[in-house]
Amino acid sequence: MRKYISESIGTFSLIFCGTGAMTINEVTGGDVTHVGIAITWGLIVMAMIYAFGEISGAHFNPAVTIAFAYAKKFEWKEVPKYIIAQCVGAIVASSVLLFLFPESEFLGGTIPTVDSFRAFILELLLTYFLMVVIINVSTGSKEIGTMAGIAIGGIVLLEAMFAGPITKASMNPARSLGPALLSGHWEQQWLYFIAPIAGALLAVLTCKVVKPENCCDEC
Amino acid sequence: MRKYISESIGTFSLIFCGTGAMTINEVTGGDVTHVGIAITWGLIVMAMIYAFGEISGAHFNPAVTIAFAYAKKFEWKEVPKYIIAQCVGAIVASSVLLFLFPESEFLGGTIPTVDSFRAFILELLLTYFLMVVIINVSTGSKEIGTMAGIAIGGIVLLEAMFAGPITKASMNPARSLGPALLSGHWEQQWLYFIAPIAGALLAVLTCKVVKPENCCDEC
Amino acid sequence: MRKYISESIGTFSLIFCGTGAMTINEVTGGDVTHVGIAITWGLIVMAMIYAFGEISGAHFNPAVTIAFAYAKKFEWKEVPKYIIAQCVGAIVASSVLLFLFPESEFLGGTIPTVDSFRAFILELLLTYFLMVVIINVSTGSKEIGTMAGIAIGGIVLLEAMFAGPITKASMNPARSLGPALLSGHWEQQWLYFIAPIAGALLAVLTCKVVKPENCCDEC
Amino acid sequence: MRKYISESIGTFSLIFCGTGAMTINEVTGGDVTHVGIAITWGLIVMAMIYAFGEISGAHFNPAVTIAFAYAKKFEWKEVPKYIIAQCVGAIVASSVLLFLFPESEFLGGTIPTVDSFRAFILELLLTYFLMVVIINVSTGSKEIGTMAGIAIGGIVLLEAMFAGPITKASMNPARSLGPALLSGHWEQQWLYFIAPIAGALLAVLTCKVVKPENCCDEC
Repeated sequence: MRKYISESIGTFSLIFCGTGAMTINEVTGGDVTHVGIAITWGLIVMAMIYAFGEISGAHFNPAVTIAFAYAKKFEWKEVPKYIIAQCVGAIVASSVLLFLFPESEFLGGTIPTVDSFRAFILELLLTYFLMVVIINVSTGSKEIGTMAGIAIGGIVLLEAMFAGPITKASMNPARSLGPALLSGHWEQQWLYFIAPIAGALLAVLTCKVVKPENCCDEC
Repeated sequence: MRKYISESIGTFSLIFCGTGAMTINEVTGGDVTHVGIAITWGLIVMAMIYAFGEISGAHFNPAVTIAFAYAKKFEWKEVPKYIIAQCVGAIVASSVLLFLFPESEFLGGTIPTVDSFRAFILELLLTYFLMVVIINVSTGSKEIGTMAGIAIGGIVLLEAMFAGPITKASMNPARSLGPALLSGHWEQQWLYFIAPIAGALLAVLTCKVVKPENCCDEC
Repeated sequence: MRKYISESIGTFSLIFCGTGAMTINEVTGGDVTHVGIAITWGLIVMAMIYAFGEISGAHFNPAVTIAFAYAKKFEWKEVPKYIIAQCVGAIVASSVLLFLFPESEFLGGTIPTVDSFRAFILELLLTYFLMVVIINVSTGSKEIGTMAGIAIGGIVLLEAMFAGPITKASMNPARSLGPALLSGHWEQQWLYFIAPIAGALLAVLTCKVVKPENCCDEC
Repeated sequence: MRKYISESIGTFSLIFCGTGAMTINEVTGGDVTHVGIAITWGLIVMAMIYAFGEISGAHFNPAVTIAFAYAKKFEWKEVPKYIIAQCVGAIVASSVLLFLFPESEFLGGTIPTVDSFRAFILELLLTYFLMVVIINVSTGSKEIGTMAGIAIGGIVLLEAMFAGPITKASMNPARSLGPALLSGHWEQQWLYFIAPIAGALLAVLTCKVVKPENCCDEC
């Protein structure tokens, strides 16, 4: 039970701070700045990994959980519980943000500024880079170890920085679900549920080629 | 005695640099920038943790000290001495800033830009996130260990970044006291004394659920 | 074979994110910002070092590979294979960016804003600083160890930050090759192939003077 | 001899990148930005500490060298040699910048925007904070250890960020000497030679009170 609560609290913190930065930037007319939003995303991921890495593994992301299961480092029967815990955390985060900032239209939702196809390719690549880093710095399915938080927080920060203006750099179905549900903006949201999972699985395939001892038990 | 002096000097450094960034930004018409202010807050917390973590535990914050006592990791009889040391450091910092920049109206004080209720909720959540990280990366009541400074400095940086435009992201009664006393701006200051303590205590409760071995001795 | 694939994927990620930041900044009219571009470059280098340092050594840069061979820490016969792997990664990255953002004119290419001679001196010095850090924090020819990613990512970040407005801070022939080939902008590109190699070799000479045990086996 | 060359090369790199950021910002009309300049200063200090910490101790600053000698952690007879090595590095850095950017008026020099007395107090405090961190994270007089580079680079970054608009946050006589000599701007420069030394000595006194085992052998 403790690990599900950890995933919920961690995902709640992640989505509250990250989409909160975007929401506050919206309602203040740009006070947080784009650079500030990207830094917020990266550092909250880093901080939550150091806080919860040893308890739940600090996934906070259905795509990461599914990829770890596909890599045979995490049990498939745990996957639905983790995803539910993550989605609950994300939805509560967006609910609190809606309560605090009812004037916000998007609540930090992910609406691409390009067509769905290009947004799909970009989100797939972003999650691919993220998962390549995660799988190489993790121990089993846990994001622990001295540098795990810095490496994973760093890749999230930089991807939010450079790709934010195009797709908002979701890389995480739960992160897109919360704001979509509470703001009612469902345009093109399907791509944020499929592309991250495809990208994360692709990273596991890469890992099997370049570092098999790190991503599967029998190959 | 050494630990009280350490808490005073650390809190002095923290408040001088953090509210100094806001004061210099005010008197120069925005030269430091919002992003620069948030980075200053995060890094001074990090640097002071590496400097004083082994001596006093590097709390620099009455809410953190009270929460550690509530978690039974710090003696209650030490709490008043720590709080006095922290408040002395903060007041001296604001006094020096007033001497250097008498033209500043706020001295980096925390005035929310929303109503007190919403500001209260936000400050409570901000301190909750902060204390969740602190309690999980600390050893006993001391903020030591390789990654403690980076994790705690990182959460302060990101919270100042995203929530600064709304409440200035105090999370610390001593941090709000100094500028309020020296600038005379006491509007809504009550919330900055109560919300951080409530949020930090809530984090201890969470910890008791998800990681009891890390936050209480007998449960 | 695994190490060549790692060098290709790592260089692909590096060039895709770094020149992607510049490309997206170009097509959005400045949304990423100069500070955001520099942060992207530094953090993707850091993240890829933590991901691939133990497999290939995480060079991602022909100048670094040649300098390690010159320092007798890497076999000369491996050099062409590494350079090919790096160039393939860079060219694929620029190709994908051209596919996603056909409206971009430069694809993040390196065009200096000063005359070739001054640009040459600056690129030489930039790569000198980079290689001084790399050779001192690496183990053999591998960029591993707790702090290697932070130190090397940090020097890339700061050099992109301060010298970006003058030469784009390439320091890497493969990084300049990709965008030049796909965008067709070959003006002054010769300097980006020669200056980084000269600067990296100069760093090895320095190392032989100040820290011989770290950069050559027989001297 | 190796340690003097290391101090020279390290100080050259530090001053070239840091004042280079200010020089390039001046000649491009603000392209690097104030935030970018502060990040450059912090990260070049961090990178050079990881590169040269084990050889020379990575002082790069006469005030730090004098303070270590005063704390009896460094031999007085070595002090003049270190200071000469540092000043040579700084002067060469400013000379190269003058050669590359002859159109720059200040070459990144430190001219305060307030009266000398307030600038003196601020520089003294800035160097005090810096030296408090240095002395607490160093081993003997060497800036080594996993976190030394991050903690010291972090304090330099934040001080350049918040105090840069007032005094340029020198904290280092050699850093002020180079640009003053090459640009000919000597206004108020005396304070940048005295205040940092006074602040660094004050930090040693503090250390003797709060952590005597870390800053003197016989007390």
